[in-house]
Amino acid sequence: MKKNIIPVHSNERVDFIQRKGYKIIQNPEVFCFGIDAVLLADFAKAKKADSVLDIGTGTGIIPILMEARYENGNYVGIDIQENMVEMANRSLMMNGLEDKIKIIHLNVKDIKLAYKANSFDIVTSNPPYMKGKSGLVNENKSKMISRHEITCTLEDIIQSAAYVLTDKGTMYMVHRPNRLVDIMALMRKYRIEPKRMRMVHPKPGKAPTMVLIEALKYANSELIIDPPLYVYDNDGNYTDEIYDIYGMEKEEK
Amino acid sequence: MKKNIIPVHSNERVDFIQRKGYKIIQNPEVFCFGIDAVLLADFAKAKKADSVLDIGTGTGIIPILMEARYENGNYVGIDIQENMVEMANRSLMMNGLEDKIKIIHLNVKDIKLAYKANSFDIVTSNPPYMKGKSGLVNENKSKMISRHEITCTLEDIIQSAAYVLTDKGTMYMVHRPNRLVDIMALMRKYRIEPKRMRMVHPKPGKAPTMVLIEALKYANSELIIDPPLYVYDNDGNYTDEIYDIYGMEKEEK
Repeated sequence: MKKNIIPVHSNERVDFIQRKGYKIIQNPEVFCFGIDAVLLADFAKAKKADSVLDIGTGTGIIPILMEARYENGNYVGIDIQENMVEMANRSLMMNGLEDKIKIIHLNVKDIKLAYKANSFDIVTSNPPYMKGKSGLVNENKSKMISRHEITCTLEDIIQSAAYVLTDKGTMYMVHRPNRLVDIMALMRKYRIEPKRMRMVHPKPGKAPTMVLIEALKYANSELIIDPPLYVYDNDGNYTDEIYDIYGMEKEEK
Repeated sequence: MKKNIIPVHSNERVDFIQRKGYKIIQNPEVFCFGIDAVLLADFAKAKKADSVLDIGTGTGIIPILMEARYENGNYVGIDIQENMVEMANRSLMMNGLEDKIKIIHLNVKDIKLAYKANSFDIVTSNPPYMKGKSGLVNENKSKMISRHEITCTLEDIIQSAAYVLTDKGTMYMVHRPNRLVDIMALMRKYRIEPKRMRMVHPKPGKAPTMVLIEALKYANSELIIDPPLYVYDNDGNYTDEIYDIYGMEKEEK
């Protein structure tokens, strides 16, 4: 693996991501990846030859984590924010991943200008969670774009995914449970049928705070709901499954 | 409460339902109500003045359980099976509920012949779970109708519910998780928006086996997912919540 000297700005930080010694550059003033990205990269499956598009890739965390896991080499991440794209590309260089992952400055609404229909086996997305400008908007613009449906809507993302996916291609998405009806109705509208769902709960007995969805293009309707994923156990410790997903050693083990 | 002598056939049985001393006549050769009906009657809420329509009422268990809980007096249950309607009416007489609950022989597809639009505040339904003739169909005809979408589809039920509900009226439904996308997409199509959902799990850590849904006519899109309902705890005993829902005393308490 080639290693170069990569510039890191004073408002940025460099974090290890626990897999293959990879590092990621993040700017805490804008956005740092959270557990949702880590869970999505684990929930999404890719075979060796699969091409993968990550919509709204931000720091590039999802393709980087997926490459670490599946070692396939055909990833594209798109993002509308030029500053994020530039930063993500420095993370790729830092990890020697420029040949396997391309991060491109592109609004998902313009997907047809850049890619043909049926050109990716897999689409992943950890989209902005908030509808329009609902919720807190007292943030800097870049942060807002990462969190709110300002530059694109959930429908734009699902419609674009349906366009670029091959027949029987798969979309993987993480979102908030309050948008579940929107997600399911839109996926059906664009004929990528939700086939598998997993709820993520802070701990057993608590309402879910995230939902992971796998949808298959042109599939018939039949949803499998996986057992719930608990982040913490009843004693307030990370569950074994969370340790595994993060690739962390459990100290007490 | 008036008590009459009610005929019970030799292939029927009479069960107590744990609330207000009510009893219910069931025919095990056809269908006996299960935990899904009990959970739906608990999940559904009714105010004193609300009128309630139960679609596919079968033994009449849902209106009987709801009347026991809410003591309101304006229930209608419809069912396509004449033998079930006759039996349910005997259960009403046995409990002195003929003035509060009407059980009527009607195919949900003919709802417009019997009721005007906007005529019920609440609709409940524990519909057949199986699509068409999928799954086991090696059963008698009456049993098949209770379990399979033979005489009506999920779309017929949701469309009819949307028709009879008042503006801001509420539908409550219990179904299997594998039909969740169908339910959400159809509810949105007919503009009864899913607003609350609760998954029912056999025990913590297991995939859900039932889903309870509350949908509000003409509401905006925003789903609340309740904490999960566990039927058994990790030791294999009913949870306290299940004891409460059934109205049973917990022996160890």
